[in-house]
Amino acid sequence: MFQKEIYLKRREVLKQKMGAGLVLLLGNSDSPMNYAANAYKFRQDSSFLYYFGINTPDYVGIIDVDNNCDVLFADDLTMDDIVWTGPQPSVAEIAAGVGVNKTYPLSALPEYVKGREVHYLPHYRTDNKLKVGSLVGKDYTALQPSEKLIRAVVSQRLVKEDVEISEMEKACAIGRKMMLSVMSQCRVGANEQVIAGTIEGIVLAEGAGVSFPSIITQHGETLHNLHRDADLQDGRLLLADLGAETNNNYCSDYTRTMPVNGKYTTKQREIYQIVLNANKHGIACCKPGVTYADVHIAACRCLVDGLKQVGLLKGDTNQIVADGAHALFLPHGLGHALGMDVHDMESFGEQYVGYEEGKQRSTQFGLSALRFTRTLQQGNVVTVEPGIYFIPQLIDQWEAEGRFADYIQYDALRAYRDFGGIRIEDDVLITADGSRVLGEPIPKEPAEVEALLGK
Amino acid sequence: MFQKEIYLKRREVLKQKMGAGLVLLLGNSDSPMNYAANAYKFRQDSSFLYYFGINTPDYVGIIDVDNNCDVLFADDLTMDDIVWTGPQPSVAEIAAGVGVNKTYPLSALPEYVKGREVHYLPHYRTDNKLKVGSLVGKDYTALQPSEKLIRAVVSQRLVKEDVEISEMEKACAIGRKMMLSVMSQCRVGANEQVIAGTIEGIVLAEGAGVSFPSIITQHGETLHNLHRDADLQDGRLLLADLGAETNNNYCSDYTRTMPVNGKYTTKQREIYQIVLNANKHGIACCKPGVTYADVHIAACRCLVDGLKQVGLLKGDTNQIVADGAHALFLPHGLGHALGMDVHDMESFGEQYVGYEEGKQRSTQFGLSALRFTRTLQQGNVVTVEPGIYFIPQLIDQWEAEGRFADYIQYDALRAYRDFGGIRIEDDVLITADGSRVLGEPIPKEPAEVEALLGK
Repeated sequence: MFQKEIYLKRREVLKQKMGAGLVLLLGNSDSPMNYAANAYKFRQDSSFLYYFGINTPDYVGIIDVDNNCDVLFADDLTMDDIVWTGPQPSVAEIAAGVGVNKTYPLSALPEYVKGREVHYLPHYRTDNKLKVGSLVGKDYTALQPSEKLIRAVVSQRLVKEDVEISEMEKACAIGRKMMLSVMSQCRVGANEQVIAGTIEGIVLAEGAGVSFPSIITQHGETLHNLHRDADLQDGRLLLADLGAETNNNYCSDYTRTMPVNGKYTTKQREIYQIVLNANKHGIACCKPGVTYADVHIAACRCLVDGLKQVGLLKGDTNQIVADGAHALFLPHGLGHALGMDVHDMESFGEQYVGYEEGKQRSTQFGLSALRFTRTLQQGNVVTVEPGIYFIPQLIDQWEAEGRFADYIQYDALRAYRDFGGIRIEDDVLITADGSRVLGEPIPKEPAEVEALLGK
Repeated sequence: MFQKEIYLKRREVLKQKMGAGLVLLLGNSDSPMNYAANAYKFRQDSSFLYYFGINTPDYVGIIDVDNNCDVLFADDLTMDDIVWTGPQPSVAEIAAGVGVNKTYPLSALPEYVKGREVHYLPHYRTDNKLKVGSLVGKDYTALQPSEKLIRAVVSQRLVKEDVEISEMEKACAIGRKMMLSVMSQCRVGANEQVIAGTIEGIVLAEGAGVSFPSIITQHGETLHNLHRDADLQDGRLLLADLGAETNNNYCSDYTRTMPVNGKYTTKQREIYQIVLNANKHGIACCKPGVTYADVHIAACRCLVDGLKQVGLLKGDTNQIVADGAHALFLPHGLGHALGMDVHDMESFGEQYVGYEEGKQRSTQFGLSALRFTRTLQQGNVVTVEPGIYFIPQLIDQWEAEGRFADYIQYDALRAYRDFGGIRIEDDVLITADGSRVLGEPIPKEPAEVEALLGK
């Protein structure tokens, strides 16, 4: 939790942006794992945390714009609770810590919102959908979140304050430790689950947990590969996509790809170098005033130039990118906004977070997966994570359709069917006149990576 | 996953017990953490796993007793899914692995159950409550789980098969590693979160995760203390209550209490020895034909005898236990059933799991928290976890009320207000002619524990 002035100011800014009405921000409740009392580790809702900072289940916050006040609803513990959970500060004491001096029991909430103009965000947990539905008198499947509120929150949360940047540096420091641990564990015969479990221990010792389930895989061509039970094999690449969340719930997100046996083959190194060039070029393009859509395109051109050199593409670089032929190798976007959520505010809908008002998402394969396109401004944090993947099922489908047969060298591609995939990802803060990579650098030059493996 | 014969047999036994109708077993779906696509680590429903063994989200199983067949409902992946998640076996292939040869898409489920006598279990996740509600035409808050099905499942799952016992031994082996790690990390200045995170890394490397959130606390008197951010202090006791879940989802559950500075004080050692005696005596009492309620009472008498010797209680041991005065020191029950859930089948309601038909739960403070009372039979696994706690708020309340003033030596108690709490817990399998503690022993003699600390 930050100092209360931070939350007071954030709520004040939101009131200005909203002008009128009542903003209803539901905190999360515990999420049952295998029975009601055995819950997953509690994760507070990020927007509730942003405006109210309280990391305890079963709180509801109201920012009452009409009456210019903030209210928290929660229940105090009973004596029976105290035997099981120990003495805790009262709701009023907790609320005072974030600058709120009006508190009521949860039972007072329906009366408070009755007849008011209620603005609420989209919810991703069914329990909260049901609660909102019962408060506003709608079925939980037919809620109507407030577009005005979404846009106001997005505009605030996309621009990171100094305290947030400093938390994200911490998240990067933990993420770096995790990645260095992967590199030190990476050797023939090591096990994916052991590596993934060990790095989760590293983040839990210092932070809230992984910012998303770690991807530790020799099948980097599978973009969200969460299977990780294999032993590491000689000759393969290990892709590690991982991130930490601090105790204050700010995230990092890194990817590195390394040779299991400690040495990239010539073919692996060629492809790796192309991805690394695109990663560096993408980072160099990030500055205020440039759209992230253009950064994506610039990185794609970099990939295409490299793929032409190794004989997997031919033709005019700009045309290949414009037509989307490169998406066979990079079917995802260059990156996304990063903050309290690893895909920041994804629960609102990517349209609102990643696209300016009036901008539409492309329907072209590859570009349609681009999560972020906005004009960059100071305080934004984005990932830059180009990759090259060889997905046998996708290659077969495109070749059978004769898709982009003028550009794509399908014959040459056959030698890459079991290559896997490479991705290299860093987290980039937009500064006043450019950008900087957050955190101490994590080795990404091939020789640097090789030097760390299995040590 | 076990061999398919295991699941075929379990379903056959359940059909015999049910006689008629249709058993609806919902698997779990992913549970969103901070947005829909960022889910907690998937945990399958234990009963679905028990009868169908498939550890994948969004499956529904039906054991159709009337038609003597088993059916699985789930959807195959699309090409778009394959780009993101990689090629996966088909639903039919997965189902065949657990001996089911009828599979349908999820959309076929409502038609299948329509007009049938549907038996379902109590659910603990709102999403599954809503699904069951829509299938049986009831509001999700007014479901009527089948008591017959609950009793049938409890009678099966309470008696562990050999493959289950062998999984629980694995869970104990991981739990033992975790506890030995706590002991080796325990020293003045070490941090509770670092210890808890590190042991979570140990279990994630080898198993599914912690079987419940680890309790790593210097306030052992708080029974479910999940706060763990403090540094370890000279002179205090560290209580570690932790467990592992294997990749096949069987659990262990252990508690040890150790002196932070490496050496129990005389006072700590006196209380520790009382708890240890109760732990050993409780284990010795466990055998087929004895009720666990009686084991609880036997252990309580052991605690009372010890507390009399140190001058905290006086009077007739049997009378003190019968009246419930010892519950000031032990407000919880001696233990619970252990299996795929750390409190096995707690989602069904403890009344069904822990109490035989017709047996009522006591309303006496302390005894009212006893989770398990059944007559023990071969194959049961229970925890034995006596404790002595000094809970200042509870002591003050009882003293103010003059409660059990003839027994409880409130004056002598004042010297223990900041003592904390001690608990010692092992997992016990009921055998043909007695019982045995599962797993390799974890040191619990004071000298053994001291020898391991900080090493």
